[in-house]
Order: sequence, then C-alpha cells, then structure tokens
Amino acid sequence: MALAIAESERVRGTTSPNPPVGCVILDATGKPVGFGATQPPGGKHAEKMALHDAGDRAHGGTAYVTLEPCSHWGRTPPCTDALLEAGVKRVVYAVSDPNPQAAGGAEILRKAGLDVEVGVLAEAVGKGPLRAWLHYARTGRPHVTWKYAASLDGRVAAKDGTSRWISSEASRREVHDLRTKIDAIVVGTGTVRADDPALTARDADGMPLARQPLPVIVGTSEIPPAAKLKTTALHLRTRDPDVVLSELAGRGVVDVLLEGGPTLAGAFLERGRIDRVVAYVAPVLLGAGPEALKDAGVSTITDAVRLDVEEVTMSGADMRISAVPQRRNGVHRDR
Amino acid sequence: MALAIAESERVRGTTSPNPPVGCVILDATGKPVGFGATQPPGGKHAEKMALHDAGDRAHGGTAYVTLEPCSHWGRTPPCTDALLEAGVKRVVYAVSDPNPQAAGGAEILRKAGLDVEVGVLAEAVGKGPLRAWLHYARTGRPHVTWKYAASLDGRVAAKDGTSRWISSEASRREVHDLRTKIDAIVVGTGTVRADDPALTARDADGMPLARQPLPVIVGTSEIPPAAKLKTTALHLRTRDPDVVLSELAGRGVVDVLLEGGPTLAGAFLERGRIDRVVAYVAPVLLGAGPEALKDAGVSTITDAVRLDVEEVTMSGADMRISAVPQRRNGVHRDR
Ligand SMILES: NC(=O)c1ccc[n+]([C@@H]2O[C@H](COP(=O)([O-])OP(=O)(O)OC[C@H]3O[C@@H](n4cnc5c(N)ncnc54)[C@H](OP(=O)(O)O)[C@@H]3O)[C@@H](O)[C@H]2O)c1
Ligand SMILES: NC(=O)c1ccc[n+]([C@@H]2O[C@H](COP(=O)([O-])OP(=O)(O)OC[C@H]3O[C@@H](n4cnc5c(N)ncnc54)[C@H](OP(=O)(O)O)[C@@H]3O)[C@@H](O)[C@H]2O)c1
Repeated sequence: MALAIAESERVRGTTSPNPPVGCVILDATGKPVGFGATQPPGGKHAEKMALHDAGDRAHGGTAYVTLEPCSHWGRTPPCTDALLEAGVKRVVYAVSDPNPQAAGGAEILRKAGLDVEVGVLAEAVGKGPLRAWLHYARTGRPHVTWKYAASLDGRVAAKDGTSRWISSEASRREVHDLRTKIDAIVVGTGTVRADDPALTARDADGMPLARQPLPVIVGTSEIPPAAKLKTTALHLRTRDPDVVLSELAGRGVVDVLLEGGPTLAGAFLERGRIDRVVAYVAPVLLGAGPEALKDAGVSTITDAVRLDVEEVTMSGADMRISAVPQRRNGVHRDR
Repeated sequence: MALAIAESERVRGTTSPNPPVGCVILDATGKPVGFGATQPPGGKHAEKMALHDAGDRAHGGTAYVTLEPCSHWGRTPPCTDALLEAGVKRVVYAVSDPNPQAAGGAEILRKAGLDVEVGVLAEAVGKGPLRAWLHYARTGRPHVTWKYAASLDGRVAAKDGTSRWISSEASRREVHDLRTKIDAIVVGTGTVRADDPALTARDADGMPLARQPLPVIVGTSEIPPAAKLKTTALHLRTRDPDVVLSELAGRGVVDVLLEGGPTLAGAFLERGRIDRVVAYVAPVLLGAGPEALKDAGVSTITDAVRLDVEEVTMSGADMRISAVPQRRNGVHRDR
C-alpha cells in the first residue's frame, strides 16, 4: 500500500475533479509487477494503468489500491470489470468511496469470489493524497488549506508592509512544492495590491514548474492594471467564501490553497470554510505590522476557534504547524 | 555531573545573588557518598554541604561541581580550602567562574597537586541552572526571560480583553513551577489594570507554594487601589528597562521573569534586554485582540529581531518555544 500511496502522490494535482489514486499489482508470488495512478480527467484510472503495466502477470495476483475500485460507467468503464478480467484473486484498498454512485465496488468483487480487504493505511491515505478529494466527495465543496507565514508574534509583514522574507528558504521551497500539488491558489485583492504576487510554482532557480495551479483573486475592487495577476488570474468579484467555492467547484477545483491575506482568511474561517491551517512560524519578532488573521468573528475567548494540531515540524529555522479547526460543539460552523 | 546538576536544580530560586551550585562527592572507589547545593545567602556553598555529607569518605575521592570552586573569602571561607582539607584527589567542574575575584580556584587546586578537569556538561549547566547567574556575573544585569502565552495568530487576549485561558492547563502549571525558580516577576501597569494578576506561584489546587518570587510593577501611572498587587508588589515608577534592572540587581535579583504585557516587552526587546523568549503558542485562532508584542522599534523586515530557537516542545496542546534574540551584526543591541 505504501507503494500505491507513492504512485498516487506522483499524480497529485493533475487529476481533479477525479481523485489521485495509486495502484500496485503483485503477481501470484507476491512480487510487484504493475504500477499505476489516475490519469488526467478522461484518462484511465489507477487500476487500469497498473493492470496494463502488469499484463498477464496479474493473473492470480493481488491489487493494492488507495481507493475502493469504482463499479460504475463514468467517462471510463468500471475498474471492477478490469480487475475481474485480469484474473486478480485479491483486492486490498485503503478507503471506501463515499460517492454512492461509484461505491459498491467491493461488494461486486466479493460476489465474484475475490478476497477483498479494506482499511489498510486508511488514515495515511485519508489525511494524505485523498484528503481533499474525500472532503469534496462528502461536502461538494473544495478542500481549503489556509497557509501563511508569520513572525512568532503573529505578524505577516513589518510596519512598512515589507515581508520578504519572513520565512526561511526551506519554507518557501516547500510552498512552491505544495503549489504544484493543488488546483487553485486564492488571495484577496488586498494581497494583490500589497505584494503584487505571481502565485506561480517555481523551482529553486525561480523557473516555473511544469504544473501550475489556477490563480484566483477574491474581492469586489479592481486590481491595478500592471499587477502580475491581471492577465493570468481568475478574478471573482465577491466577498462570499461560498460563492468562491462553488464557482471553483464548477471549474473542477477540488484542492484550494488560500494564501491570504488576513482579511480573506478571517472571512473563510468565520464561515467555517477553512479545513486545514498550515502556519510557517519564523523565529522572528516584529512588534508591529499586519496580523496573520483579521476579523474571524471572535470577540471573546470562549468563542476562540480551537484547532487540533496534526503535526509540528521544522522547516529550516521555521516551525511548520499543520492543524484542523474543530467544529464547535452544538453550533456547527458549517452553516 | 548529572547528579550535581540535579542537586543544583533543587535550590534554584533560593540562592540569589549567589549561584545555585550543585556538588556530589565520590569516595575513592567511585561511589557517590556526599550531596550538596548552595544554601541561601550567608549559608554554606555546595562543596561544603557535600563534603559535610560525605565526612571521612571524601578522602581520596572526587568532587563533581557545576561551577569552579571559589578561592576567595566572601561571607564564607574559600571552598578550595575545604576540598584540600577533606583530602579530595580530583575535582571535576562544569563551568569556570567568570567573576575575577572568585576565579582561580582551579589553579589553586592544581598547584596543590589535585587532578582538575573542566568542561564536563558545561552547556547543560550554562544553559540550565547557572544560566541566569552567569549572565548576571558577566553583565551585572539580571537575566530576563520574557514569557507569554498567545494564540497561533499572536494574540494574548480576545477582542473584549478576556484571556482566561488561552493556554492549556499543562502550560499554566509549568509557569507556576517556573515562578518558584526565579527571583522576580515583572509586569507593566497595563497588565495590572487589564488582568489584576496576583503573580504568585501556586500548586495544582491553587494554594501558594513555599517559595514566592518578588512581584514588580513597571510604569509611571498609579494602579487601582483594589489591585491584588497593590500591597504585595514593588512598583517601579519608570519606563526605562535599565532603571528597572539596576534597581532589581540592587535587591539581589539575578533571574527575572517578564510576564508582559506587550508594551513593556516591546520596550525591553528594543533595548536589547530580553535574554530569552519563552512563548506558549496555543492551537487557537482569534483574529482580533491585543498582539503579543508592541512597538519593539522594528519598522521594516530587515530590522526584525531574529531569534535562535533553543527548543520546541509540546506542553499539553500548546507549543512551547524557547529562543534567544540574536545580537545584531555590528549594531549590538546592547547599548
Ligand atoms: N505572510 C503571508 O503569508 C501573507 C500572505 C498574504 C498576505 N500577506 C500580507 O497581508 C497584507 C494584506 O492584507 P489584507 O487583509 O488587505 O489582504 P486580503 O485579505 O488579501 O485582501 C483583503 C480584501 O479582500 C476582499 N475580500 C474578499 N472577501 C472578503 C470578505 N468576506 N470580507 C472582507 N473583505 C473581503 C476585500 O477587498 P474588496 O474591497 O476588493 O472587496 C478586502 O479588502 C499585506 O501586508 C500582505 O503582505 C501576508
Ligand atoms: N497572555 C499573556 O501572556 C499576557 C501577559 C500579560 C498581559 N497580557 C495582556 O496584555 C494586555 C495589556 O497590554 P499593555 O501593553 O497595556 O500592558 P503592559 O505592557 O503590561 O503595560 C503597558 C504600560 O507599561 C508602562 N510602561 C513601562 N515601561 C514602558 C515603556 N518603556 N514604554 C511604554 N510603556 C511603558 C506604561 O504605563 P505607564 O503609563 O504607567 O507608564 C504602559 O502603559 C492585556 O490585554 C493583558 O491581558 C497578556
């Protein structure tokens, strides 16, 4: 399954609105003989890629897949058929398909006499490569990761607005890698005016990488005609996070990186539309300048948005904190 | 030496202006036979406590001490004499005494024919139990640890001023433990007005612990007559950090815990008078409310105060970050 996950990681960011799935076929002796991952929309699913790679050797073997094999005719024939045809004896998958249309694959395989096992490395897959897609499949909304870089005292820029570079080189490299794996980067008009970002994914030499996410600007005001994003970005003239998300879902966007600024992040957080926070906290003190987050609708400490910390790691000199907002008890922020 | 460090930790907070030193005596066969630590001012030094504990068994043995044994007559006779008298053959210590008056102990012992070794666990001692005292011995100023508890977005209270509790129970317990080990807690008049703190060290049941630090208020304005600190605290009517520190040094204070607020911390940081930052960052987002640090004299990103992170640990759900401000290249903040 770890190999199947690695396969899926390879295609992350290229498959939306389909899930980035990975599959590995073992022959009857247990040797890995076929590798595959989801192709871009309209292309083959992971299972078919891996079966094709394995050829006859799949006969009597085992398929490891990160997601339950689909049983329906979409743009491609069902993967369950392909697995049966290839003569695979055993199928092991990590997470079930929450999509009622596609689900039922396991049942079909079991009825056909195959050995079917579910739940292997389910958490690694569910919080990893399939995280955004599973969220999207369950809620109909793209998954939103709010990423920001701040000083230890919570500032995203100095008093005079300068912010290059608060975070370490290592953190900036990580962010560019992250950008190649998501579908859209969203910023507010305020950030465009303050920083004139390009929002491209670049390599260590500053050269654009092959895969680029869709840059999106949110806000009702015009952006400067000379702004780098003027010609490249989709400008959504709204202040409503849900309008933004449904607009993006309509374009096949599943995985969104919200890169600020503080006001737009506050609006998304207040609406319960931030699914993960990734904070790069630099060992730096500023004492003045814009705060990382503004106006999230919290006025007293008992209303604070509490987070479950998933991971704290070091990224160069910075701390990287990955956390998930808790849904409030009773008052579900998901309105 | 680890045992000697443990001895010294036991008396931390009770010895100022003297250093909290620990000593362990091994007999000729290498068995620990005497333990000791610095007594309150006017009392015995660690070496004498340990030698007394060991009695005759010290003869031909080894002394492990966290600080170079003193060679001068202070309020007590020199420890070098006591070690020679006891017939110890070998002395191992962690750090040298930076005080020219007290130093030279190693030299005297060597001349008397003893085996003397220096530098064992020097970093653990220098950054641990003797950290504040070494700073004080070198600069003449008390060591200042700025401790604060903030949300991930850098706020120390919510919009309406409420701040109980941003940090976890575990962090609050840690702070009370810390308070028993330092000499003075300093806050600004703003914090007194906002929070009316007692600044006492309490146990898990809220009962005051045996050892209490000196509470100190800094600022020119009066504090409310009903404030808890009104009768217990020393109120220094100044805004100058150096006046505060020399006033405290004059009272035998070596180790200061600056507990805020943001304005006072900014003033200390700008003057280069913060020697360590201990931040409890809670997995909470607020989006409004007072920031952890205000007006530290930084107006552009290249002037940011950079920190060397010493340690990142978890304290309950909070991250605890311990870091040391870098002295700026050229422009030494120590004016
Ligand atoms: N270090 C980092 O990670 C990072 C990242 C991004 C930005 N920043 C910094 O953040 C600062 C910019 O802050 P900002 O708050 O102005 O940026 P912002 O959040 O990007 O933009 C704010 C604008 O977004 C629009 N908007 C969209 N939805 C909204 C809503 N629901 N409510 C209110 N406004 C909404 C409004 O513009 P309209 O008037 O057009 O509707 C608003 O003025 C700059 O200093 C920049 O350097 C730092
Ligand atoms: N979570 C935490 O760790 C924590 C800790 C402490 C406070 N807080 C929060 O911080 C807030 C209070 O903030 P604050 O900034 O008013 O508190 P503060 O820093 O404690 O007090 C500010 C006052 O200190 C005096 N002061 C002393 N030296 C100064 C200097 N060099 N420059 C300027 N002023 C100096 C001034 O009073 P005079 O006019 O009297 O001279 C000033 O008004 C409250 O909301 C409190 O809850 C949070």
